[in-house]
Amino acid sequence: MSNNSVFSALDRAMMARAIMLAKRGQYTTRPNPNVGCVIVNDAGDIVGEGWHIRAGGPHAEVHALKAAADKARGATAYVTLEPCSHYGRTPPCAKALIDNGLKRVVVAMTDPNPQVAGRGIKLLQDAGIEVAHGLMEAEARALNPGFLSRMERKRPFVTVKVGASLDGKTALSSGESKWITGPEARRDVQRLRAKSCALITGIDTVLLDDPSLNVRHGELGSLGASLTEPELIQPIRVVLDSQRRMSTDAKLFGITGPILLVSAEPYDEKFLHSLPDFVTCLILPGSHGRIDLAALLSHLGENCNRVLVEAGGTLAGAFIAAGLCDELVLYQAPKLLGSHGRDMLQLPDYQTMAEVPGLKLIDERKVGQDWRFTFTVA
Amino acid sequence: MSNNSVFSALDRAMMARAIMLAKRGQYTTRPNPNVGCVIVNDAGDIVGEGWHIRAGGPHAEVHALKAAADKARGATAYVTLEPCSHYGRTPPCAKALIDNGLKRVVVAMTDPNPQVAGRGIKLLQDAGIEVAHGLMEAEARALNPGFLSRMERKRPFVTVKVGASLDGKTALSSGESKWITGPEARRDVQRLRAKSCALITGIDTVLLDDPSLNVRHGELGSLGASLTEPELIQPIRVVLDSQRRMSTDAKLFGITGPILLVSAEPYDEKFLHSLPDFVTCLILPGSHGRIDLAALLSHLGENCNRVLVEAGGTLAGAFIAAGLCDELVLYQAPKLLGSHGRDMLQLPDYQTMAEVPGLKLIDERKVGQDWRFTFTVA
Repeated sequence: MSNNSVFSALDRAMMARAIMLAKRGQYTTRPNPNVGCVIVNDAGDIVGEGWHIRAGGPHAEVHALKAAADKARGATAYVTLEPCSHYGRTPPCAKALIDNGLKRVVVAMTDPNPQVAGRGIKLLQDAGIEVAHGLMEAEARALNPGFLSRMERKRPFVTVKVGASLDGKTALSSGESKWITGPEARRDVQRLRAKSCALITGIDTVLLDDPSLNVRHGELGSLGASLTEPELIQPIRVVLDSQRRMSTDAKLFGITGPILLVSAEPYDEKFLHSLPDFVTCLILPGSHGRIDLAALLSHLGENCNRVLVEAGGTLAGAFIAAGLCDELVLYQAPKLLGSHGRDMLQLPDYQTMAEVPGLKLIDERKVGQDWRFTFTVA
Repeated sequence: MSNNSVFSALDRAMMARAIMLAKRGQYTTRPNPNVGCVIVNDAGDIVGEGWHIRAGGPHAEVHALKAAADKARGATAYVTLEPCSHYGRTPPCAKALIDNGLKRVVVAMTDPNPQVAGRGIKLLQDAGIEVAHGLMEAEARALNPGFLSRMERKRPFVTVKVGASLDGKTALSSGESKWITGPEARRDVQRLRAKSCALITGIDTVLLDDPSLNVRHGELGSLGASLTEPELIQPIRVVLDSQRRMSTDAKLFGITGPILLVSAEPYDEKFLHSLPDFVTCLILPGSHGRIDLAALLSHLGENCNRVLVEAGGTLAGAFIAAGLCDELVLYQAPKLLGSHGRDMLQLPDYQTMAEVPGLKLIDERKVGQDWRFTFTVA
């Protein structure tokens, strides 16, 4: 769908506001995308605005139309994502915009969801509404890396998180890893978790650290103030356990919430019967007795926008080496653990620098005593 | 020597200028300290200033007195280090200040050199000059970490430099390490070398990388413009070769300039006779067939203010583990080499986090694509 529209400064300002509003849903809309909408009258005044808050609840356009009421008639709507054209859990937004008499609709990006994919814009145009699209498309895409990955690549957006010392170690040889990074970094990880539909870890981490792998509302810092505990969506906890070494004593099972246990071969019946009913098992055999990570991501891609890999060097490295890591978030502590410590990433035995993974820095900041580096991985 | 002086804003401003002037000698005065001097008349105008440029040349006070000529009479001199009281390569500066009729001398710090150590101040006071000291002492000490270490601890200030990937590797398993860090970081290392009286490396690095270990004027960047090639003092190149594996073919020997070859046992006569005459050999046996690093530093402490360790993980780690590293400069490249790569630091097999070396960040900056972190090591 080509776009030759010329946008005004007002158009840009209003779309920027719609994008800002969309971000307010970043912890709560999944598996839906973040969407914002601003309705502006002929005088350039905002008469209604809204954002998508929660899957199953009204879309951004519906919130904005409700706020605008009869002022929507003859107005312009700015929407960060093409209005939907299908009956899902809510009626199509394109229809609502038509019914409310909008004169013009500006869309940042078309919806890659095959159920929409231009049909929303066509519906509006067929009803005689002037439609312009492509305004701040890059910024609108950046709102929804997970949703777009799921729609366009049929898998989630994968973030690998590593906490390591300056010399790239995640633990001492004794296994001691508490606390390499400081409390601020650990709180920051809670926010990463809160954005994720699933957390993936390996059986070694479960047996060694016995983690809860949940989002703890009390550790969210300032985010906790704007997000109540019931609004928080707990990510699915995914444990990769190729050799079926999982223990029923794991702390994970003591916390109610979805768990996906993935193995390369079936668990025995006795083990399965001893599991709480919120645990699902999946068998995904890959090569060499390992789990097929690509198949796992396809499976998770049905409902998960973003997944966070929080694992030791073997599993974290396997995602990177397989080209299945989109983003690396490295928390680096100003410590030296030395050569006996555990390596942060098991990667293939590269022979030349040309073979090593390409990284592009997209963000760096100090988090307490530690640094947080965010890279995209080529 | 206690100090109860109250310093004025003018005093502070003038001492700050003297410190700034002292820094101009940072690449050229060794093994002497960096010293700056400002002479100010009763009206608060600077009538002369100078800094120590080169060992054997005039001291800072002499440059400043020469500039001030007869305006020094009745003026105040600000000196970053206590004026010397002994006849060395030049006559004592305390005497020059007395002879030129200074009324007041403000000193940032007393000279820890046992040949001075308060005698300079006493000479001035005995001549009826008002002396105040202790102004900006911390800043004055920071000018000369190497000289102070040599005087106070009888060993040089030791900087360990490491260039590594994000996951703490200095090379691939194949040995390939060109180029982990970028050209800006390599130029920055040239400046570190130019500040150092000696560069210490290990035989493994020599055999693997065959380095020149010299300061290349053309690679000094903006520093090269303010420092001519003849002004550059080439550091002593120190190679630790406990097992006498050194080859006479090493590129090091092709570049004229002092080399110190250190082994745990004597080289054979034939090898010794094949060496250029700028090579000195030293036998410093330590435990387990290794070299005694503390003895090496005592030896270098006779003439070296600062030494830079540029070595692989074994030797770099040995300095840190032995408590002989004062400063760690880490150039970190945004690359991942993986677990098969070579570890940046061989350290003891620590069992608890309480045992790992304590680091204090004193500087961090981006150097081209890389980061440079500077830590003091506890």
